[in-house]
Amino acid sequence: MAFSERVTRLKSSLIREILAAAQRPEVMSFAGGLPAEAMLPKVEWADMPLSLGQYGMSEGEPALREALAAQARALGLECQASQVLVVSGSQQTLDLAAKLYIDKGTEILLEAPTYLAALQIFQLFGADCLTFAQEADGPNLAQLRQRLEQHRPAFIYLIPTFQNPSAVRYSEAKRAAVAALLDEFGVTLIEDEPYRELTFDGASAKPIAGRLQSASWIYTGTVSKTLLPGLRVGYLIASPDLFPHLLKLKQSADLHTNRIGQWQALQWVGSDKYQQHLSELRGFYRQRRDAFQATLEKHFADLAEWEMPQGGLFFWLTLKQPLDTRTLLNDALANDVAFMPGEPFFPDPDNHLGHLRLNFSHIDLARLDEGLKRLAAVVRKAQLDEAA
Amino acid sequence: MAFSERVTRLKSSLIREILAAAQRPEVMSFAGGLPAEAMLPKVEWADMPLSLGQYGMSEGEPALREALAAQARALGLECQASQVLVVSGSQQTLDLAAKLYIDKGTEILLEAPTYLAALQIFQLFGADCLTFAQEADGPNLAQLRQRLEQHRPAFIYLIPTFQNPSAVRYSEAKRAAVAALLDEFGVTLIEDEPYRELTFDGASAKPIAGRLQSASWIYTGTVSKTLLPGLRVGYLIASPDLFPHLLKLKQSADLHTNRIGQWQALQWVGSDKYQQHLSELRGFYRQRRDAFQATLEKHFADLAEWEMPQGGLFFWLTLKQPLDTRTLLNDALANDVAFMPGEPFFPDPDNHLGHLRLNFSHIDLARLDEGLKRLAAVVRKAQLDEAA
Repeated sequence: MAFSERVTRLKSSLIREILAAAQRPEVMSFAGGLPAEAMLPKVEWADMPLSLGQYGMSEGEPALREALAAQARALGLECQASQVLVVSGSQQTLDLAAKLYIDKGTEILLEAPTYLAALQIFQLFGADCLTFAQEADGPNLAQLRQRLEQHRPAFIYLIPTFQNPSAVRYSEAKRAAVAALLDEFGVTLIEDEPYRELTFDGASAKPIAGRLQSASWIYTGTVSKTLLPGLRVGYLIASPDLFPHLLKLKQSADLHTNRIGQWQALQWVGSDKYQQHLSELRGFYRQRRDAFQATLEKHFADLAEWEMPQGGLFFWLTLKQPLDTRTLLNDALANDVAFMPGEPFFPDPDNHLGHLRLNFSHIDLARLDEGLKRLAAVVRKAQLDEAA
Repeated sequence: MAFSERVTRLKSSLIREILAAAQRPEVMSFAGGLPAEAMLPKVEWADMPLSLGQYGMSEGEPALREALAAQARALGLECQASQVLVVSGSQQTLDLAAKLYIDKGTEILLEAPTYLAALQIFQLFGADCLTFAQEADGPNLAQLRQRLEQHRPAFIYLIPTFQNPSAVRYSEAKRAAVAALLDEFGVTLIEDEPYRELTFDGASAKPIAGRLQSASWIYTGTVSKTLLPGLRVGYLIASPDLFPHLLKLKQSADLHTNRIGQWQALQWVGSDKYQQHLSELRGFYRQRRDAFQATLEKHFADLAEWEMPQGGLFFWLTLKQPLDTRTLLNDALANDVAFMPGEPFFPDPDNHLGHLRLNFSHIDLARLDEGLKRLAAVVRKAQLDEAA
């Protein structure tokens, strides 16, 4: 059996296994990143034209590209519809970027921690993953500058707004500083923003891509966290030098994104009813965040530290007494609780023990207290065992 | 700008450019492979559950996987639903297979000619493309054996039923012989069957994958040619040794296929109404094929040779007096006629001059005679110019 060399790096996905285990209805799961079922909007299909059943353009539906460009311009990202590529969920942007940039040994620069599935596909293509530390308001700038001085990464991958997993939102000052650094060193930016609209304090956080003067960039977003993930409709917007390559890579990946989902997305993007839905969604998630915060205080105050997230779907806990949280999984699942260990969110997991990613959006409020209580007990027991 | 090494092989897609030129309403196009608009079935969406808006499984919807496995078993392919992976159009199967098998310089074995978009993605990943000649009933077996004796290809890629572009359907004898050869040499089969159901004589053509004793295999199909391509729903079925790798690659490519299209496909696959629709579709395309054959006889009898296709969407013409058909494109488009030159369907195009691929399914019957007349005139003129 002669597979490609890259297949040796095709990891079993820990999150797949955890989510599979969390399917049992009795499991209280903090593991996934699923939108709350109750907040999936009711969508109508009756008016969809039959002609959308035909093959479409690799670029995406023209009207949707226009609407997405307008939405991006409102965020300060100067762009035209011709720079918008509709993709099959923003995960596909990562696949296209990996194809565009990564050979075996190509250096790339990532936040530590970073999005697990991005790490997986970049590593699959053979990237050498450099990282810099995150602080509460964004990158450690001295460390970021040092990396840029000492390396020539093919790109930097950032999730500046309510990052998965850390929930960090870059400050305005750090956004400006990062943009200046990327221009100075001529490093391409890939900016991933699935959580932008899930903000609880309404504070501004304009894209970094819109602040660049000369560096190339790919900005990517999705309707998965705010409309319906099952549509598999995301998008990227790229600087004009990159767009033609990304378009050809998209075409060879799957010809084009399904037009049914694109049509549905177009019914929402830029509309008043979408703004109304987003407003309800923020209110709903803010309440869940607040309940989670209060319950965490109750059960984890002595065990861990965390920043209260101002958006997104996750709490990121740092244990006061670090241990490899992957070793907690079996015991947690035996107690019908699921969570995501923090280690896999780093390219060098063994150097970053003691974080937990907890999703607050999906769990039934009635089971929240019991779930966190059990999880805290699992942590406490492991710490006692370790001390013994 | 440091792109990956593979980007140097990212070709401009000739077919994209031709199809773009063919968008002008006055153009009579034989270039694409689009289903006839008139035959897109009316689909209903009213009963779709809202819960399909949530994230789904990377494997695909369980009920659809069951239905696809049952359909494949009826064709003689022993398989379980657990071997079925729903993909975002069967183009994605080619992307996943390229990732699974191809490093720079990996030898693979292809029909000559073969599907253009397969060639493009295999070459993008750096494959060294070996070929064997096609005859009217399938491979030249002596040449195929010789290739297998002299090389160790990572896989063989076949479109045995109404191939795009050649319309060749392998005979039963050649299907058996190919399966025996692949078992003998232990070479993995990728069998691509988008056109299986578009048969005009109803003759049997059971999959080669179902005849294998020991070789690994991937069988891939789609609803794009028989239901709605805009859904972007295809599938692969793989031998159990390959499935887990393909599943992980699928997950990293786009998480899962859109569930809206999967739900719609499930309303049809295995149903009586699908059989009824397929029957109407075959009748419609058979009529178009017959009209095209008669009109070709009128205008091209002295210029080219061809086999009448027993299925699929294309005629494959071989000019009696070969010339590089790519050079005909500008003149054809200037006369408002579009077609696909045959050369790009070979990895070594300059060694295979003088074929044209003509789609018969899409053109309006009222313009068929004029279109083929103009195209014949373009060929005639070029041959005179060449002789001069």
